[in-house]
Amino acid sequence: MALIVQKYGGTSVGSIEKIKKVAERVTQYCERGNRLIVVLSAMAGQTDSLISLAKEITETPDPRELDVLMASGEQVSVSLFAMAAKSMGYDCRSFLGFQAAIYTDHIYGKARIRQVDTKRILRELEKNKIVAVAGFQGIDERNNITTLGRGGSDTTAVALAAALKADLCEIFTDVEGVFSADPNICTHARKLDQISYEEMLELASLGAKVLEIRSIEFAKKFNVPLHVRSSFTKSEGTMVVAENREMEKILVSGVVSDKNEARITIVKVPDRPGIAFKIFDPVFEAEIVVDMIVQNTSAEGLTDLTFTVTKTDFQKTLTLINKIAKEIGAEKVLGDQDIAKVSIVGLGMRNHAGVASKMFETLARENINISMISTSEIKISCIIEEKYTELAVRALHEAFGLGNEKEKN
Amino acid sequence: MALIVQKYGGTSVGSIEKIKKVAERVTQYCERGNRLIVVLSAMAGQTDSLISLAKEITETPDPRELDVLMASGEQVSVSLFAMAAKSMGYDCRSFLGFQAAIYTDHIYGKARIRQVDTKRILRELEKNKIVAVAGFQGIDERNNITTLGRGGSDTTAVALAAALKADLCEIFTDVEGVFSADPNICTHARKLDQISYEEMLELASLGAKVLEIRSIEFAKKFNVPLHVRSSFTKSEGTMVVAENREMEKILVSGVVSDKNEARITIVKVPDRPGIAFKIFDPVFEAEIVVDMIVQNTSAEGLTDLTFTVTKTDFQKTLTLINKIAKEIGAEKVLGDQDIAKVSIVGLGMRNHAGVASKMFETLARENINISMISTSEIKISCIIEEKYTELAVRALHEAFGLGNEKEKN
Repeated sequence: MALIVQKYGGTSVGSIEKIKKVAERVTQYCERGNRLIVVLSAMAGQTDSLISLAKEITETPDPRELDVLMASGEQVSVSLFAMAAKSMGYDCRSFLGFQAAIYTDHIYGKARIRQVDTKRILRELEKNKIVAVAGFQGIDERNNITTLGRGGSDTTAVALAAALKADLCEIFTDVEGVFSADPNICTHARKLDQISYEEMLELASLGAKVLEIRSIEFAKKFNVPLHVRSSFTKSEGTMVVAENREMEKILVSGVVSDKNEARITIVKVPDRPGIAFKIFDPVFEAEIVVDMIVQNTSAEGLTDLTFTVTKTDFQKTLTLINKIAKEIGAEKVLGDQDIAKVSIVGLGMRNHAGVASKMFETLARENINISMISTSEIKISCIIEEKYTELAVRALHEAFGLGNEKEKN
Repeated sequence: MALIVQKYGGTSVGSIEKIKKVAERVTQYCERGNRLIVVLSAMAGQTDSLISLAKEITETPDPRELDVLMASGEQVSVSLFAMAAKSMGYDCRSFLGFQAAIYTDHIYGKARIRQVDTKRILRELEKNKIVAVAGFQGIDERNNITTLGRGGSDTTAVALAAALKADLCEIFTDVEGVFSADPNICTHARKLDQISYEEMLELASLGAKVLEIRSIEFAKKFNVPLHVRSSFTKSEGTMVVAENREMEKILVSGVVSDKNEARITIVKVPDRPGIAFKIFDPVFEAEIVVDMIVQNTSAEGLTDLTFTVTKTDFQKTLTLINKIAKEIGAEKVLGDQDIAKVSIVGLGMRNHAGVASKMFETLARENINISMISTSEIKISCIIEEKYTELAVRALHEAFGLGNEKEKN
């Protein structure tokens, strides 16, 4: 008998029929003698329609009240699920954030879980009940409702699995697992049987949308085995686990691309101490998230400084940087939205030389120019022209032999 | 400076525009130096669409989970209202049932309020915040969400007014107040300036839909002055208060009719001790609510017994009574759905003779036959043929001089 936390995303509970299907699947697990905690997102579309209600009231809704509003979405799906399970003859009980005692800080809209008091959930599990928990929501120390941000239900599931010392945390989603590349780009992309937390973290932050980053951090910290799989098929997905010897043999686990970035270059910046602070402090103040930053070695006391931001923040950043460039006496500012980031991720990079040069060689062979490079212990990212994105992903996928048998033949 | 609890019903918050209008009205009260607690129902239509979601899952949804689902309706309206008030520059904070500490028993779907812990609301009021409370919902001693049944938001408002010792509890609705008769039937119906709790209780239980019965009982018990008024106009409504000398002078305050009942007669029942129990015990067991019961004096050891139930329960009751009639050896069972109950209500009846005979005389003059009569201290109800309902209401309204000036001229 295992204690299993399962999380079903918005598309998995997107209609009454689908909620019933989820209930059926959950009860099959119970039949096999497992104890189940089921975390649910709001029904697909619900979150967006609640947001537009709020926007009809005001363009800048109060964050506390927005969280109260948003939390109602999971309240609907979790109660409907519990009704469905009960109507199938299984005892089931729903828990909202305050009932499951999921305590967070008080940063509305992106609260962080501080503590989960599992007493009440354990009491229901002991009575052989299925416990259904509203994902994405918690309460702060003053009983205010908080939400964990987009994808927060993943974090709820992992936090519960950690607190309950569950044997497994299964994330049911609309894809079959983690792939060596986006199957929409690479027809021969292979579903990975397992991947390490570290690699998954890199993939998620580089653009893979299958898991929310904070949930992976949580899983890594508390060593919660994650199983990412499809809610529409029975096939096994991908296990996200602590790294093991087998994994280290693999040079590259996956290729991932991200078209959501834009590049800004400040040309001929006077190179003196404190200049980076002068440039980026106002950017961070404006809550703009900067991804890559590259500064060339200085020549004649002048340097070029390039960085990337999301396309959404591009215009806002450009306006701000133009102002700053004048103040610091830089020559000019260039902006480019037609870029993409292509990355390879793999634990094996740590111990194997030549991975980077193989990446550069592969891109060169396809006549793809690299305009920025950024590396970490287990990933290499290159900024290229946007139009080459798919070509680059396919070429790298093949060069590192990531495909399935069909491709290899 | 007054402490005022205001309640706005579903039609008053039926759209984003209407929620903004309610927020405007509330802030005007604040401008005049009042402290406001605002209780809101779910947006009109929301409750019904949540119920149909549940019915899609199963015909008999689990009561606990149904309450979790239903409570999300008020969660939406209360958070949207708070956003609107904040966007107008007024500090406002929403409270759900568990946050407002509205403790109930654990009868899901029709919970009764046991206690309200006002500490947290008082703290916010002291900070000059508008407090917005989700109506209709509470929690039991185990933190389960409960709902108070249809119209429960009225009860929430009155309970809060009682617990906070508010100066006034205003119930904003889609009618202008309590009328001497239904204005759709009687064009000359007059809005009452004031009415006693007792009369309002009788009117509500006889078919007037303006206030939920339990909220009036609560108001009476804790002597909370109620002001029933329209959310769409600025005009004064009706004050529901403890009776005073002025009221006793008025013979009849209102005429009310109810077409929602049906009549069942058991003919020639052997008249012996325990027979009423034998008939009605299975009826009550089947959770059928019986309204009027009339038994004629016995002749030759046989009696006729007539009672009314709601039209919804008619067929179910008829089947049950036919079975019982056979068992007890009654002659036959008659059923009639084409009936209506017409009632007059007034504190003055206590001290004035002749009110009943004036009612019977008025109906006789219109050739309306009375098939059942039931009286209490301050009301007289007659069962008549359904087709005469409007005629009877108008005739009684005129006979007791209840109309406005236009009618009197």
